[in-house]
Amino acid sequence: MNWRVIEGGVTAPQGFLASGIRAGLKPSGLPDLALIVSEVPATGAGVFTTAVVRAACVDYDRRVLGTGEKVKAILCNAGQANACTGKVGEEIMQASIRRLQEVLGTQEHILVASTGVIGRQIDRDKFLAAIPQAVAALSREGGMAAAQAIVTTDLVTKVQALETEIEGVTVRMGGMAKGSGMIHPQMATMLAFITCDAPVAGELWQAMLRRATDKSFNQITVDGDTSTNDLVLALCNDRSGFPLISEPNSEAAKKIESMLTDLCIYLAKKVARDGEGATCLIEVRVEGASSDEEARQIARTIASSSLLKAAIFGRDPNWGRIAAAAGRSGVTFDPSQLRIQLGNYVLMEQGQPLDFDRAGASQYLKEQAERSGQEQNIDHPVVIQVKIGEGQGQGIAWGCDLTYDYVRINAEYTT
Amino acid sequence: MNWRVIEGGVTAPQGFLASGIRAGLKPSGLPDLALIVSEVPATGAGVFTTAVVRAACVDYDRRVLGTGEKVKAILCNAGQANACTGKVGEEIMQASIRRLQEVLGTQEHILVASTGVIGRQIDRDKFLAAIPQAVAALSREGGMAAAQAIVTTDLVTKVQALETEIEGVTVRMGGMAKGSGMIHPQMATMLAFITCDAPVAGELWQAMLRRATDKSFNQITVDGDTSTNDLVLALCNDRSGFPLISEPNSEAAKKIESMLTDLCIYLAKKVARDGEGATCLIEVRVEGASSDEEARQIARTIASSSLLKAAIFGRDPNWGRIAAAAGRSGVTFDPSQLRIQLGNYVLMEQGQPLDFDRAGASQYLKEQAERSGQEQNIDHPVVIQVKIGEGQGQGIAWGCDLTYDYVRINAEYTT
Repeated sequence: MNWRVIEGGVTAPQGFLASGIRAGLKPSGLPDLALIVSEVPATGAGVFTTAVVRAACVDYDRRVLGTGEKVKAILCNAGQANACTGKVGEEIMQASIRRLQEVLGTQEHILVASTGVIGRQIDRDKFLAAIPQAVAALSREGGMAAAQAIVTTDLVTKVQALETEIEGVTVRMGGMAKGSGMIHPQMATMLAFITCDAPVAGELWQAMLRRATDKSFNQITVDGDTSTNDLVLALCNDRSGFPLISEPNSEAAKKIESMLTDLCIYLAKKVARDGEGATCLIEVRVEGASSDEEARQIARTIASSSLLKAAIFGRDPNWGRIAAAAGRSGVTFDPSQLRIQLGNYVLMEQGQPLDFDRAGASQYLKEQAERSGQEQNIDHPVVIQVKIGEGQGQGIAWGCDLTYDYVRINAEYTT
Repeated sequence: MNWRVIEGGVTAPQGFLASGIRAGLKPSGLPDLALIVSEVPATGAGVFTTAVVRAACVDYDRRVLGTGEKVKAILCNAGQANACTGKVGEEIMQASIRRLQEVLGTQEHILVASTGVIGRQIDRDKFLAAIPQAVAALSREGGMAAAQAIVTTDLVTKVQALETEIEGVTVRMGGMAKGSGMIHPQMATMLAFITCDAPVAGELWQAMLRRATDKSFNQITVDGDTSTNDLVLALCNDRSGFPLISEPNSEAAKKIESMLTDLCIYLAKKVARDGEGATCLIEVRVEGASSDEEARQIARTIASSSLLKAAIFGRDPNWGRIAAAAGRSGVTFDPSQLRIQLGNYVLMEQGQPLDFDRAGASQYLKEQAERSGQEQNIDHPVVIQVKIGEGQGQGIAWGCDLTYDYVRINAEYTT
């Protein structure tokens, strides 16, 4: 890691403004409209939900990015997902884009995102009336306000900004995300927005975002559900003064991708930790697979096991559920090679359970949860290490425990 | 349906004896050893877990059935799954088979199954000492006792027996199952044993069981977890007096397969209804797909959505979660064709949410749960009907709601 954590979120990089305001779309009256604007047209990249039933904004953004043309801004509302809302919903989306272009006085593309209840229309009048207010509220310090305006059942906002030097030039990257519920591989109701003030050529920026997403947002799971609206959008402009990065193997490209990956992993872990009702973050590290992809798949399967997640909530070092989850991941391996470690406790070796200190392992789970409990801390995950053989493939996935509160939140959340 | 429900379980068919006794393997002291014996060697079939990490009994039974040779009995213990128990566990299994052969005075094959905690050894001495007792307890009325001895966290035993006439001959089929927790497609910690007194040729019997399982046990889901031990075993002998059924397209074969499928569906629904902590059975019917397999896949995905399952526990007619689950099932369809119905309430048509009677739909969910609450009743499922297009493919899946008790049970169940 050659970067430093700095203050601010998506407005930490040069040339980005943001705002988060109350448009009256959320019944709670909390902030619900976020706007990110690049002073100069920016290069966009995106990764989207693979669901067949998806919001119009997903298709719209994909089309915009497909043109390869520059992007001026990202507009995101919370409260209604604008999915399963038909022609009316699509028209509201289009009207919001036109309205924002007018107010900003631009013909450049706008990317859009929505999160909230599926199938309920956004209040068109309130939405359009709020857009000038969102523009008026734009500031270089608006990153945190924007992050607050995109959350739904999240308990904490998820923000980070990083800074590094590349060839003597200071380059910054910022990001924000929302998650909670419906978090799962293939992009769940999870939104993430990333900004960077070093210019990266379009296809390379897209490739970087795809790889970073595969190692981060696609490796988190809360409950196995994916959503209609998930996306990660990334904008980069040239305001750091660094020249265009277009050579994939250059040091600059590697540094940017490494920073992007770390930023995405940070945000992804924050999202997993803030899974609905969760009391701790679970990190599953798999090694010895024949490919990274296979290792990631096993890690995801373990991290998404309801039985394991409930056992961890019960502070029960139930290695049997880890072994069972690994065994049904779809990846073939020799079970007599299986090794499972929880924290510092080796629970299984060469496919055989060991006599481990059960009270100590349970205490480890208790302690990690206690440490995690403070402000949704991600620095003390429950670490599960699994080795399935001698291959070079490795991967990490993150999840959270399954608690009474998960059920309560999802039984009570109203349609 | 040309069959009648009759009394008894696996001993309802002619020529089958069973017993269920207390071997002292379960810490609770409840019955934990079940034995089914065919008076004459029977034809066996089996469907097994696809997990890589699996119990030795799974591989053993598959090898036995692979020989095509006759089977004398099925021995099943509860309390310990005898999975991840290595050479010692395998030796205990082999010793139990030898002991049972000795006591029964047979050289015929014995099939074995286990369920319970993974990774803990079965108490060898208690297990072997109990086998003569199990044989001594065999009777023509032992079906219910056997069913009681295979449960773990199940709240009710799952038993059914059917009777029909084929060409004037009375033919009977009986079955028992255990489930609860770790129930999911591809055979979760779910055991089912079926007996029949009409003789079916080996390959045909196996093909029938495979197809019946695909429509029943592989279409139920409780929590997405699959286990190391799941299997369905079926034995048929010739004690009804009906001659060998070997022609797949004969009326007799069709009648037997139809009865087998209905029996498996009944047992599968009982297992789903008894999912850990569940308050109701959920039935998801999908039509309009291009194949039955695709329809089944969508149905399974919907039935296994944690968000939907929690919403149903909250008696919340959340069609958005149904649409989202259908959309991420991996099956491609035109979302503008999507139709969703809950009970008699049409929630969505042509991909658009309708203004439905929300209070009425919520009341429907309440009523079905109340009706379901009586002795794990399966006659009042919450029915979700989904149509995705104009294709001929259709499929049904069953699940249950996600409740506080699911979390409690799995957080407290000890390793």
